[in-house]
Amino acid sequence: MEPTSPDAVRLIALGGAAEVGKNLLLLEHGDDIIAVDCGLAFPEEDQPGIDLVLPDISYLRERRERLRAIFITHGHEDHIGALPYLLPELLPTPLYATRLTLGLIRGKLDEAKLTARADLRELDPDTDPVIEAGVFRVEPFRVCHSIPDAVGYGVSTPAGLIAITGDFKFDETPIDDRPTDYAKLATFAERGVRVLVTDCVHVESPGHTPSERVIGETYDEVFSQAEGRIFIATFASLIARIQQVIDTAARHGRSVAALGRSIENNIRIARELGYLGDPQHTLVEARDAAQFPDDRIVYLLTGAQGEPMAALSRVANGDHREVAIGAGDTVIVSATPIPGNETAVSRVIDKLFRAGAEVIYGKRALVHVSGHASQDELRLMLELTRPRDVVPIHGEHRHLALYADLAVEAGIPRERVHFIENGDVLEIAPERVEAAGRVAAGSVFVDGGTVGAVGDVVFRDRRALARDGVVLVAVTVDRDSGEIVAGPDLITRGFVHVAESGELLDAARAALREAIGTAAEGDGYDGWSALQRRLREATTQFLFRETGRRPMVLPIVLEI
Amino acid sequence: MEPTSPDAVRLIALGGAAEVGKNLLLLEHGDDIIAVDCGLAFPEEDQPGIDLVLPDISYLRERRERLRAIFITHGHEDHIGALPYLLPELLPTPLYATRLTLGLIRGKLDEAKLTARADLRELDPDTDPVIEAGVFRVEPFRVCHSIPDAVGYGVSTPAGLIAITGDFKFDETPIDDRPTDYAKLATFAERGVRVLVTDCVHVESPGHTPSERVIGETYDEVFSQAEGRIFIATFASLIARIQQVIDTAARHGRSVAALGRSIENNIRIARELGYLGDPQHTLVEARDAAQFPDDRIVYLLTGAQGEPMAALSRVANGDHREVAIGAGDTVIVSATPIPGNETAVSRVIDKLFRAGAEVIYGKRALVHVSGHASQDELRLMLELTRPRDVVPIHGEHRHLALYADLAVEAGIPRERVHFIENGDVLEIAPERVEAAGRVAAGSVFVDGGTVGAVGDVVFRDRRALARDGVVLVAVTVDRDSGEIVAGPDLITRGFVHVAESGELLDAARAALREAIGTAAEGDGYDGWSALQRRLREATTQFLFRETGRRPMVLPIVLEI
Repeated sequence: MEPTSPDAVRLIALGGAAEVGKNLLLLEHGDDIIAVDCGLAFPEEDQPGIDLVLPDISYLRERRERLRAIFITHGHEDHIGALPYLLPELLPTPLYATRLTLGLIRGKLDEAKLTARADLRELDPDTDPVIEAGVFRVEPFRVCHSIPDAVGYGVSTPAGLIAITGDFKFDETPIDDRPTDYAKLATFAERGVRVLVTDCVHVESPGHTPSERVIGETYDEVFSQAEGRIFIATFASLIARIQQVIDTAARHGRSVAALGRSIENNIRIARELGYLGDPQHTLVEARDAAQFPDDRIVYLLTGAQGEPMAALSRVANGDHREVAIGAGDTVIVSATPIPGNETAVSRVIDKLFRAGAEVIYGKRALVHVSGHASQDELRLMLELTRPRDVVPIHGEHRHLALYADLAVEAGIPRERVHFIENGDVLEIAPERVEAAGRVAAGSVFVDGGTVGAVGDVVFRDRRALARDGVVLVAVTVDRDSGEIVAGPDLITRGFVHVAESGELLDAARAALREAIGTAAEGDGYDGWSALQRRLREATTQFLFRETGRRPMVLPIVLEI
Repeated sequence: MEPTSPDAVRLIALGGAAEVGKNLLLLEHGDDIIAVDCGLAFPEEDQPGIDLVLPDISYLRERRERLRAIFITHGHEDHIGALPYLLPELLPTPLYATRLTLGLIRGKLDEAKLTARADLRELDPDTDPVIEAGVFRVEPFRVCHSIPDAVGYGVSTPAGLIAITGDFKFDETPIDDRPTDYAKLATFAERGVRVLVTDCVHVESPGHTPSERVIGETYDEVFSQAEGRIFIATFASLIARIQQVIDTAARHGRSVAALGRSIENNIRIARELGYLGDPQHTLVEARDAAQFPDDRIVYLLTGAQGEPMAALSRVANGDHREVAIGAGDTVIVSATPIPGNETAVSRVIDKLFRAGAEVIYGKRALVHVSGHASQDELRLMLELTRPRDVVPIHGEHRHLALYADLAVEAGIPRERVHFIENGDVLEIAPERVEAAGRVAAGSVFVDGGTVGAVGDVVFRDRRALARDGVVLVAVTVDRDSGEIVAGPDLITRGFVHVAESGELLDAARAALREAIGTAAEGDGYDGWSALQRRLREATTQFLFRETGRRPMVLPIVLEI
């Protein structure tokens, strides 16, 4: 589709998650494309067996030679996690990110043995004001989020200035003393913001998201009362939270040991790059932690989302190699369950209580704050940037709809709030913003060692297998005479108790022998596929009659 | 296990859910047993394909002739839902329940063609003060809950008075004007409550659960602003909520039409029995609703938990036979997601927004209140009944643990708060309460037409099938020569796209032919099971090498 104005810029969101524009955004003008972020999603409940969900970048792949640069907003998985999979196809494009974000990316690329090939460029929003990328002039600005060193980007384009907030909140008292850059946002407003592309995922919350610092007060209170060991589970990337654990522990004369590979890695990277301070040498190795008296140690753990293989679950289940939990221990689950994880988190908390621990979690105390802007902060962002048009992203449709109401209340005309879905092209011209078709977008599923080998039909089969189980029925037939020379034989999995299935399957064998034998005799052998169909039908009918259920029936006919 | 005191009474909770004592409680003394409730649970995420979960009643079944009566507290599924399955095994025991509860039970038993055989006895807590059942004297008392006509029971036993609250809250302004019976609870206290067996599931909430009546205020506000149709989704059994919809609609000049079989049934039963008033003839038939102007109609729907087959989901998906939703419509999702349903509810809400509706839900307004007591009400129950010992039930372990803290703060010595799990026997003697072993308890799974035919191994297989899919490999072998005369042939489901699997399976066939052929030649035919094992190993190895994944491999060897 040709742009209707020579100055028009195309904004395209890629990714397959329910949230829009979270994983990968493209800005395109003529022969120039820039990408913002390259993240992944985690599978939904109805995508069984999937490890990760990558954005479909076929649109970008076909235009790879036009890609001038990739800009990363911050180091969370949903913004950097797809790089090890997708960056090789996009090289030699330079990738820009702040120091900590780049450190986290480098860790991923190292594991994938890609670092040597990548063109990684560190940017500092305070000293690198403008990066040129084709026709685009890109200005990073600091934002607060639940990981340090997060930025948004102001992108000067032929259509005007497009400000992309990235994930943000306004924290007046951030742990790293680097608040969102009001001043730069205000200068954007002076120059005129054509479009604000804004995080809106926390729009359901009224008021202002509390400062990360308030968590320290909860920690102080818990530390004052705990007489035994303290366990704190949180997100591995929440460096500010980890800093607060270290600081609180130091104040209370406790040492801190990290359990879990991702939290250990992130602590190492953040310390090396100067994002995590440990002035009193509070951090100790996990293997040394057992030597400390109970009231002198704090364990920092992964697994606050109930992930079954992470440290918290293993500690709760009693199968952690180093640490067992019990009476006298205090556990702070310092996170809010991400939608979909509620049951898993609830189970872990229950196991901790069952083990006799005192457990502090979201329903009992303020142990987590969001990294995203609440309603007042979303309004503040609009007031600071005074955009002509707004594109809410990073939310599901209900967040976009509620954000639109908020923006309209804040004075943006409703027709200037634009909803996009992943794959939609939004054409931003100096005088108008409008939908301009769609490009290929969606999910590419990573399942074990394979990328893209599963999709909707596979999921449908997996769900059917999970619901009803599978019954295999095999026969060997003489292709000349049509005589059944072996079988039918049946195997089931996920259908009924094996102990009880013996009798049922014997009866099935007999019934099938009769059904199939008759058919072959009466009509002669009418070929492999007809016999297969008859086998399936007879088996399905028999089992439904006997059990009232319809497992997946898979017939195999072998011909000799 | 013999009781240590001749006056001791045994309290036993049956059921397989994570919540304790929710589905079925037994009180036993000598030759007398009474049961309280007979409910079911819904399957957990890791129990795929299951429709319902019944309590294992083998303990009771073996002592059926001692069962003197069944007492039901209220008409929710988790308290009456197992009756159609289990009551036939427990007859001719009389079953006592209040009028509405009995109406709902009768509906279930009618469907199962059991009503004629059942001995159903209506009780009225206001006029039937005492029911004799063997050694037990049972006194029902009114409690408020999210369904009308709920009761608890005071049971006089040789060990003293055991008060069982059932599910309860204290609502000072209930819609049916029948508050929890403070006076009777106070008389229990005067006589001395040996043990209070109490609902504790809402113990995480501070303060007092709001009155059901506050929902009416939200409704009034929404009705004042809505210009188009209004849809209200809630629980079919929440008769008080339905009454408020009818009353609010009448005030605003709208008629009410119910969509969904369970809500239609419950409205019919509640009206017949006098539990639902419609003085202004506000209720209309769903088939007539389309004739009303948009601003004159309210639809009452099932499916507020995101159940895919219920009316709300079908309306949101655009596949409801009678009603399509769109711009101008207002939808109130008047429920809080039950743990585990968060994602499903969130998806439905998103679809409603996408369809253009204004959607009012828990994060935006007060559209639901719990039917369970918050902390202050739990304290009030302790103050009213002044029990010597307490047994918290109806919660998961964390609720029991938090309730214990609350009870201790309220003055109950910690050693007088007793935790039980389903299957535990608690022996209540006049002078002491203590654990006394366990009985068979757990879950009996209903899967389609079969009861009890699936269990842990089946679930494990179903989860494996869902995660990795299944690969069948079949060969026909000459049992004398060991020669492979047909196959190997492979079929996969839930593994990879069929389009891409052709090449992979061709390669697998070739690799297997080689692996199996060689083995047979080299070693001679060593029997069906050895060949089956070799087939499985060779297939698993080949697929792991090619795809990095390990689907379930099911070999079938047919001998001729």
